[in-house]
Amino acid sequence: MLGNTFGRLFRVTTCGESYGEALFTIVDGMPPGLKLTKEYVQAELDKRRPGQSKLDSPRLETDQVEIVSGMREGVSTGAPIGLLVYNVDRQDIHVDQYRQVKDLIRPGHAEYPFFVKYGEHADWCGAGRASGRETVGRVAGGAVAKMILEREGIDVISHIVESHGIKACPMEFEQIVANYRKNDLNCCDLEKAEEMIADLGKVREEGDTAGGVIEIIAQGVPAGLGEPVFDKLKATIASGLMGIGATTGLEFGRGFDTARMKGSEWNDAPYLDGEHVRFRTNNCGGFLGGMSNGEELRIRVAVKPTPTISVDQDSINVMEMKEAKLSAITRRDITILPRIYPVAEAMVRMAVLDALYMAKGYDYFCRLDPKWKKMGEPRNKA
Amino acid sequence: MLGNTFGRLFRVTTCGESYGEALFTIVDGMPPGLKLTKEYVQAELDKRRPGQSKLDSPRLETDQVEIVSGMREGVSTGAPIGLLVYNVDRQDIHVDQYRQVKDLIRPGHAEYPFFVKYGEHADWCGAGRASGRETVGRVAGGAVAKMILEREGIDVISHIVESHGIKACPMEFEQIVANYRKNDLNCCDLEKAEEMIADLGKVREEGDTAGGVIEIIAQGVPAGLGEPVFDKLKATIASGLMGIGATTGLEFGRGFDTARMKGSEWNDAPYLDGEHVRFRTNNCGGFLGGMSNGEELRIRVAVKPTPTISVDQDSINVMEMKEAKLSAITRRDITILPRIYPVAEAMVRMAVLDALYMAKGYDYFCRLDPKWKKMGEPRNKA
Amino acid sequence: MLGNTFGRLFRVTTCGESYGEALFTIVDGMPPGLKLTKEYVQAELDKRRPGQSKLDSPRLETDQVEIVSGMREGVSTGAPIGLLVYNVDRQDIHVDQYRQVKDLIRPGHAEYPFFVKYGEHADWCGAGRASGRETVGRVAGGAVAKMILEREGIDVISHIVESHGIKACPMEFEQIVANYRKNDLNCCDLEKAEEMIADLGKVREEGDTAGGVIEIIAQGVPAGLGEPVFDKLKATIASGLMGIGATTGLEFGRGFDTARMKGSEWNDAPYLDGEHVRFRTNNCGGFLGGMSNGEELRIRVAVKPTPTISVDQDSINVMEMKEAKLSAITRRDITILPRIYPVAEAMVRMAVLDALYMAKGYDYFCRLDPKWKKMGEPRNKA
Amino acid sequence: MLGNTFGRLFRVTTCGESYGEALFTIVDGMPPGLKLTKEYVQAELDKRRPGQSKLDSPRLETDQVEIVSGMREGVSTGAPIGLLVYNVDRQDIHVDQYRQVKDLIRPGHAEYPFFVKYGEHADWCGAGRASGRETVGRVAGGAVAKMILEREGIDVISHIVESHGIKACPMEFEQIVANYRKNDLNCCDLEKAEEMIADLGKVREEGDTAGGVIEIIAQGVPAGLGEPVFDKLKATIASGLMGIGATTGLEFGRGFDTARMKGSEWNDAPYLDGEHVRFRTNNCGGFLGGMSNGEELRIRVAVKPTPTISVDQDSINVMEMKEAKLSAITRRDITILPRIYPVAEAMVRMAVLDALYMAKGYDYFCRLDPKWKKMGEPRNKA
Repeated sequence: MLGNTFGRLFRVTTCGESYGEALFTIVDGMPPGLKLTKEYVQAELDKRRPGQSKLDSPRLETDQVEIVSGMREGVSTGAPIGLLVYNVDRQDIHVDQYRQVKDLIRPGHAEYPFFVKYGEHADWCGAGRASGRETVGRVAGGAVAKMILEREGIDVISHIVESHGIKACPMEFEQIVANYRKNDLNCCDLEKAEEMIADLGKVREEGDTAGGVIEIIAQGVPAGLGEPVFDKLKATIASGLMGIGATTGLEFGRGFDTARMKGSEWNDAPYLDGEHVRFRTNNCGGFLGGMSNGEELRIRVAVKPTPTISVDQDSINVMEMKEAKLSAITRRDITILPRIYPVAEAMVRMAVLDALYMAKGYDYFCRLDPKWKKMGEPRNKA
Repeated sequence: MLGNTFGRLFRVTTCGESYGEALFTIVDGMPPGLKLTKEYVQAELDKRRPGQSKLDSPRLETDQVEIVSGMREGVSTGAPIGLLVYNVDRQDIHVDQYRQVKDLIRPGHAEYPFFVKYGEHADWCGAGRASGRETVGRVAGGAVAKMILEREGIDVISHIVESHGIKACPMEFEQIVANYRKNDLNCCDLEKAEEMIADLGKVREEGDTAGGVIEIIAQGVPAGLGEPVFDKLKATIASGLMGIGATTGLEFGRGFDTARMKGSEWNDAPYLDGEHVRFRTNNCGGFLGGMSNGEELRIRVAVKPTPTISVDQDSINVMEMKEAKLSAITRRDITILPRIYPVAEAMVRMAVLDALYMAKGYDYFCRLDPKWKKMGEPRNKA
Repeated sequence: MLGNTFGRLFRVTTCGESYGEALFTIVDGMPPGLKLTKEYVQAELDKRRPGQSKLDSPRLETDQVEIVSGMREGVSTGAPIGLLVYNVDRQDIHVDQYRQVKDLIRPGHAEYPFFVKYGEHADWCGAGRASGRETVGRVAGGAVAKMILEREGIDVISHIVESHGIKACPMEFEQIVANYRKNDLNCCDLEKAEEMIADLGKVREEGDTAGGVIEIIAQGVPAGLGEPVFDKLKATIASGLMGIGATTGLEFGRGFDTARMKGSEWNDAPYLDGEHVRFRTNNCGGFLGGMSNGEELRIRVAVKPTPTISVDQDSINVMEMKEAKLSAITRRDITILPRIYPVAEAMVRMAVLDALYMAKGYDYFCRLDPKWKKMGEPRNKA
Repeated sequence: MLGNTFGRLFRVTTCGESYGEALFTIVDGMPPGLKLTKEYVQAELDKRRPGQSKLDSPRLETDQVEIVSGMREGVSTGAPIGLLVYNVDRQDIHVDQYRQVKDLIRPGHAEYPFFVKYGEHADWCGAGRASGRETVGRVAGGAVAKMILEREGIDVISHIVESHGIKACPMEFEQIVANYRKNDLNCCDLEKAEEMIADLGKVREEGDTAGGVIEIIAQGVPAGLGEPVFDKLKATIASGLMGIGATTGLEFGRGFDTARMKGSEWNDAPYLDGEHVRFRTNNCGGFLGGMSNGEELRIRVAVKPTPTISVDQDSINVMEMKEAKLSAITRRDITILPRIYPVAEAMVRMAVLDALYMAKGYDYFCRLDPKWKKMGEPRNKA
């Protein structure tokens, strides 16, 4: 397995799996002088922790994090931050459940390509590293990014805008902040949320699961982040979000609607606001040429239904190479929307911060008149 | 400007801009023994060349490519391939046109973040490196990837499935191959293509432009490509496609439809076909856990309307920091769909090939029983 | 702090410092199916553990390692390996010693650039990440590399060939293996070792420290490892060894002697040994064009004296920006030779293995007649 | 072939070989606003151009460089710089000479591992990419680095300090500047230079070649460059210099002498010079913990004799797998010292500049009191 690192300068490397002993996160690129606490990281981890509602898997993980390096008397030293989370819910009863189905392909699940890659050594217990449990490390790394971004005035937030075909009303950033995490689904349209949750109750009764859409908004991002050709901010964020297992679609700004529009409709008109350039609309979702334009970033991600369902499914026993039936596996999420939005926030934070690291070094060498950066200061933050 | 390289092992590095002297592409990772010819690369470049129909910019670029390194007597030596394309259409009349508007923001265009990043030094001529002209290097690099992929039995093809809200009918791979490039838009639904082209004629008369959707299909991709966590094949392809300037949305398989489905509907059921695992449906578009599953890859990309339109628009003169009007700029594409699908093909080829390079080195160390790779051989190729 | 990862495909990322809570190592690129045990890693860590003789710092670290991820029932799954070592010797008495001198520059020590980079936040306790303690992570990562290399028939070993100007006699690989770790200094010339150790006894009495030279030999390395231009095996190994804090010089094969030779003396003559190419001499130390040539790799590294000495030295209090005296600091190594050779072994192992990963993926695409790899099989292993 | 890129943020990618059509260099990370001219790059290329004295190969390459991208009206735009050099001396007579010996191993030459890696496809003409001709790209890239470094007040210079065992006297930076390139060997000890050149005349008459030692000095490097663990400045420079084909040894500061010293002798004592920290001696060659300490960097590189000699040598015909004799090949350098010092300068420039790029981005996030950077300003530049 390769590729367990995200980022170029601000880099997060993780290890750990569903039923391993512990999960590590190493955050490289930490600046000195920050008062990172385990409570701060814990608050983010608590968002994605299982067992918080009937929508989630009942797995009992406390996800208690320890900061084991990079700090001296409560202040970061600049050394890489090591974050440690032990897995606690690894009782034999669950291990045995997985052992019974260890040679069976789970339809819709990442385990199948694991068999092709790792053969009979693929970790069969709770899907191993193919489990959503690896996202603990992403959220831990994203929490560190959050602290650094806060000092830059950059906020990243996400919420559920669609569940199983039920759509929330569009919302302004302030509304989302106000209604953030007010219900089990983290849908900030509180009325629609009730409808969604009721619908998911039915889905659960059917032994089924459902998909949905998450929206991520970033405020305070200065114009000019991202590199023009292959390393656009749009590309880096896309890599971060499509690197999450369950994602199947992505939209920046108007996204697929864009495809139905004319240039005269789509182009956001610029205007002057003092020394700043602003845009009257935000069809582009804050991205021009894939780089930030100073407006808020708006990104949507489609999320597939949890593949693990309580219904018998066709499968294959890959050791015997025989077709087989996969019976229901007990613990699962009805929808992973409330578990995955903190992961999406984390990935966007890391991608934006990493782009900021890239930009700042290069900026030094540009020796530009300050007017240009002034021009691109983000809306609401100037 | 940073980040002009794509890939980890099979790596393509480019330079060159709209009105510079030449465009370079360096392809690192070329194997020895391949009979790459300039005609082979030219065939790909010719697909994206401007001026091929009334839909395109009338800029007259011949895009003649020379292979300047990496070959000995017609056979690749393993040394990096250098590809050279001179810009030929750089007459004063056009340079002067750009000079007149050089301080004005073009709405919807990548030039604005260039001002923030590079200040008054940002290349004003034909948008410099923000021009679609940089995609010459992508297509050149993708042509080399294509030759290597052919030996592996991997085909990548793309076509237009929607233009300005008009949708083509879904099509099988074989139909797409049969109708590939049969009209100016490369829409393989030949009837709908006529409708689209007629519609675009009206758009042109209005001095406007329009967006659309491209679909890319890859056949012959073995299961297990991509790395499980951050470097999923899905993430790599997302980075490649969202790294193209004009893209605004992305779907793998059923994409956003997925969000409206239940697990029991979405999960593709596996079955045995001799020693191979196959899936009865392909809702996932060939991706499980972000890695390939042996079925064909189906990806859709939303493309925005060309921002350059023949209609006066609000703008800002960034040198004087005054609001201004941007008059029509003459040369432009009505839609970039027929220019961008070859770029999308190139990016998917590079991403898939790079993932294959990553996989092959690791595979050696896995010492797996051949049954596992056999199991994951791609449909149609086994 | 950036750059806490070594390697391109086989990658080791570390965190942790002298008086932090724990040290992490994440090994990315682990193949499945290997029976890695903590005892196996421990054996390598035990080589560099302090307090094993009068030559070492008396710090009492047990360096007990735990494998927290990447294994299932004793067999590697392909997931990244997480290795955890807690720091145990962190008594207040030592912390207080460091606190007293926390604002003083230690002559010859890495701490000074840490002040410039991290200011007053630089970790003052036991030098933080500037301590040799970070090499625990390197040795842990190198132990995993060792296990993989063993299956490839590649052995890496190192020994002390010079201490404070006293030189050992040149030795064949077999002799080094036979006398490996037979004395406190790991000098395989057992007679000279006694002389060296006696000399170091005097150095200790003077409150001083001394430098020396380590030789590293790798056997079983096939010809053709390393990439021809910037990523030569020689460059990768140089980066690995010069990335160790205390190293000041490096030689491949005849090294600086080479500079005094003529081409007719230096060129190693090739001859045929069945299907293999061999060389009659090994002036080049196993490197041609910076790539391996199938002969054993011979590398020497100069190591500076431990900067921490028991003699008063001129210093500067950087908080007050005043000149000051630095009195003796108690715990230190008389020579770091016996602590650093395991680190050198680890770095060479990682560099060679990473080059092997790079080569194997590319090889697949070369489709060469097996005769070429046969030709380059390593001496003693064919 | 992989790995044709050097650097992380300031990145140079090259292609091209001995008898290919042209050599490309793409410089990524170029800031805007610099007046780079082809004459500026040419001046560096002219230093390594062959045929300048009786010591060099008589190959007639003019090495005329063109800047094909990244500039607008004489000023850099921030886009990557493309540099193009055509090979001109490719007459049939020389190609035929190489064709005759194309299957023979040249003792001491990089060609042998090329056979193992690329088989019969290895470029046989003038050694292909294994030729020193690839260093044109390094010197071109280094020239761009030089221009950026000049604005930072950083000078890098190198000279020959030993040829075939004859040593020059140690010299201060100012003397080296004064005597730079005053003779065919670029040995700044003008008396010793005559002796060396006379000696090399004899070596030439014998049909032989000789090695030597190059010293590189960098002035104006601020303290704190390089990253503490794996990415030390020392490691990056080591990778750059050991990535040159002919290098066999490396010393920082006192280098191997260090190994013979005691801590009390080796530690350079710090003192205060106003707001700056300085060191009374420079045994460490400007490196503490592998990072810069504000003093001048002093590095020495051992260079092997040119392997191509005019004396018959034992060889192997790798196509027939038979032992054979390799007769003299005509064109060659008697010593590559005068050709390789510009390459060494280029690599150190790129490594230092890349480290500076890494540092500047991170510095922004450190928010340190300016006193710390002030403290570390380089000697002679404060």
